[in-house]
Amino acid sequence: MSGPLNVTDLAADLIRHPSVSPDPGESQLALGAILSAMGFTVTHLPFGEGAERTPNLFARLGTGAPHLCFAGHTDVVPPGSAGWTHGPYAGEVADGRLYGRGACDMKGGIAAFVAAVSAFLADHPEPRGSISLLITGDEEGPARFGTLKVLEWMQAHDQIPDFCVVGEPTNPTQMGEVIKIGRRGSINARITVNGRQGHVAYPHRADNPVHRLLRILNALTTEPLDSGSEWFEPSSLQVTSIDVGNPATNVIPARASAALNIRFNELHTGAALAGWISTICQRYAPGAVVETQISGESFVTKPGPEVDALATAVRTVTGREPRLDTGGGTSDARFIALYCPVAEFGLVGTSMHQVDEHVSVDDLRALTLIYEDLLKRMVA
Amino acid sequence: MSGPLNVTDLAADLIRHPSVSPDPGESQLALGAILSAMGFTVTHLPFGEGAERTPNLFARLGTGAPHLCFAGHTDVVPPGSAGWTHGPYAGEVADGRLYGRGACDMKGGIAAFVAAVSAFLADHPEPRGSISLLITGDEEGPARFGTLKVLEWMQAHDQIPDFCVVGEPTNPTQMGEVIKIGRRGSINARITVNGRQGHVAYPHRADNPVHRLLRILNALTTEPLDSGSEWFEPSSLQVTSIDVGNPATNVIPARASAALNIRFNELHTGAALAGWISTICQRYAPGAVVETQISGESFVTKPGPEVDALATAVRTVTGREPRLDTGGGTSDARFIALYCPVAEFGLVGTSMHQVDEHVSVDDLRALTLIYEDLLKRMVA
Ligand SMILES: [Zn+2]
Ligand SMILES: [Zn+2]
Repeated sequence: MSGPLNVTDLAADLIRHPSVSPDPGESQLALGAILSAMGFTVTHLPFGEGAERTPNLFARLGTGAPHLCFAGHTDVVPPGSAGWTHGPYAGEVADGRLYGRGACDMKGGIAAFVAAVSAFLADHPEPRGSISLLITGDEEGPARFGTLKVLEWMQAHDQIPDFCVVGEPTNPTQMGEVIKIGRRGSINARITVNGRQGHVAYPHRADNPVHRLLRILNALTTEPLDSGSEWFEPSSLQVTSIDVGNPATNVIPARASAALNIRFNELHTGAALAGWISTICQRYAPGAVVETQISGESFVTKPGPEVDALATAVRTVTGREPRLDTGGGTSDARFIALYCPVAEFGLVGTSMHQVDEHVSVDDLRALTLIYEDLLKRMVA
Repeated sequence: MSGPLNVTDLAADLIRHPSVSPDPGESQLALGAILSAMGFTVTHLPFGEGAERTPNLFARLGTGAPHLCFAGHTDVVPPGSAGWTHGPYAGEVADGRLYGRGACDMKGGIAAFVAAVSAFLADHPEPRGSISLLITGDEEGPARFGTLKVLEWMQAHDQIPDFCVVGEPTNPTQMGEVIKIGRRGSINARITVNGRQGHVAYPHRADNPVHRLLRILNALTTEPLDSGSEWFEPSSLQVTSIDVGNPATNVIPARASAALNIRFNELHTGAALAGWISTICQRYAPGAVVETQISGESFVTKPGPEVDALATAVRTVTGREPRLDTGGGTSDARFIALYCPVAEFGLVGTSMHQVDEHVSVDDLRALTLIYEDLLKRMVA
């Protein structure tokens, strides 16, 4: 190689491998080739069968401690119907921006890590610690055969890192604003109340399941779950749907159901919330059917040497003091947090999942410098 | 004619003219012919065009006062798919019962009135008062071109009676139990709340219309509307549907709507309830869209000479003291109440609208005797 790799070229190259979730795999083969050439030991780890087959990649350079891992995903959300001014898979640069699906979420982030390692190795050919990449091809989808499975493999092969940085876009408007050090947990519930159908003129002969469901949902939503904690904003319960579908205005229906989601902080557990929902349901509608699904528990990596090193790198490159945040949606960090300290820092996410997704070339360079600075602080 | 007409034969004859709502008209032509032969002046009053064309009939015997009117409908609900042990239009008698669609609701009632007049005239060839029939072919359907229009015609032609008896089946299990002297009003409302869509992880950027709708419905359903009055049971509000239809468990939807029906007594008016619903909606969801439809106001014919005469006739024939009731669904009595005192008394309704609708031949005879007794008390 003739000098460090260019982050914009790397990102454009990844964008040109279409990889709507689950990634068909070409982008990871290309990434694996680059990492091999840099000296990484690359292991392709496909999990799942048929339509669920998910390509994953674990690559490690060196075996020393500390072990810093960078995690991310090559899969992207679909480009949507129309309206792109630059082709979603063209990887075009215009007006200082790189356009394409995955530009900020998160092929740009992967490119920044590769470019950062490349620059770091030019100055530190024999680092003390080791560096790895944990790349999945299914973060935007069900995520059943991605990071979760790779971590099990890493555990079995003694490859758990000392610190992991997830390269998801964390900055709301400009580089350096936010490091995510945790995420709230998430639980979905569907409540179905069975009543007794009847005519509205004879309500005493019927048992209106809609009224019972109203009492349940009112009890669940009247009081806030908490008022937040040191590292978390308040937990939030949102009723996302109520479905009765009764077209007859003179008939009390036989059944009513509702769906809700709770994003919860460390003052709760998914199991405790599931129990609370069931208790409320049984109070107002004995026999109600409650189905719950815990997508993830809350977690937080409290500030310590690793988070401090990342924050210092951000401050050094951007001149901004990053806010340590735990808000927003879930990411694969929820799986990683079960094994090691994890924080998330990446690009500006304003255009993610949208038409004309793009990233500023300056931001790509800044992110590369931040990751390089972190490598120097941790593994040099 | 060779003596009074037989009520069971008359009812079977009417059943043999299929007349799913709106009645195609044959049954009313047959009825008109019988009434003409008895001396009635028969006026056929079709209203509505095309598929809505509704046959109606007004027939009057004499011009004297008081004027007693019997009201009813020849149209019937569909027979349903299968399972009749006697053909729905066969008019068969078995085990002391007359079977067929309309047997109790309410060709049997019409037959009893005709048979009663026939018997009454045999003893009183020149009655003091006058007798009429108000028959519609659309009571089970939208009822837009039936009793409502006939009453306008009657008003225009100075034919409004002093008292009207509607022959709907009013008795829950045996003859003589219930006279209906009024009905609750009915109002339907559909409430639509528009919010702002968003991700459940960022509720502060969204405005969940489901939560606003829950507040509205909770406010509308927590307190009873009233505790009933002298002649009415309590008003009742039933939420019949809530519809969001949001399949995405991580998305706060943009819109939520609900449908409700109120059956209300004379402590309320439809307009006042519509205003109350709107006020609650604006409190919790400014800009909510509220559509209301008042199907009928409540009405009651308080006990007086006419209701007393009917109750005495019932007691005389059955030995039972009829309960004066205002419960249950609406009927065309809601239109008649705007013009004159009205009460409802007919057959036993247990099999109405069901497969194998039937009426006991003894009950048909009893109802004929009751109507005849009322004629003697009022118009002899
Ligand atoms: Zn992502
Ligand atoms: Zn009827």
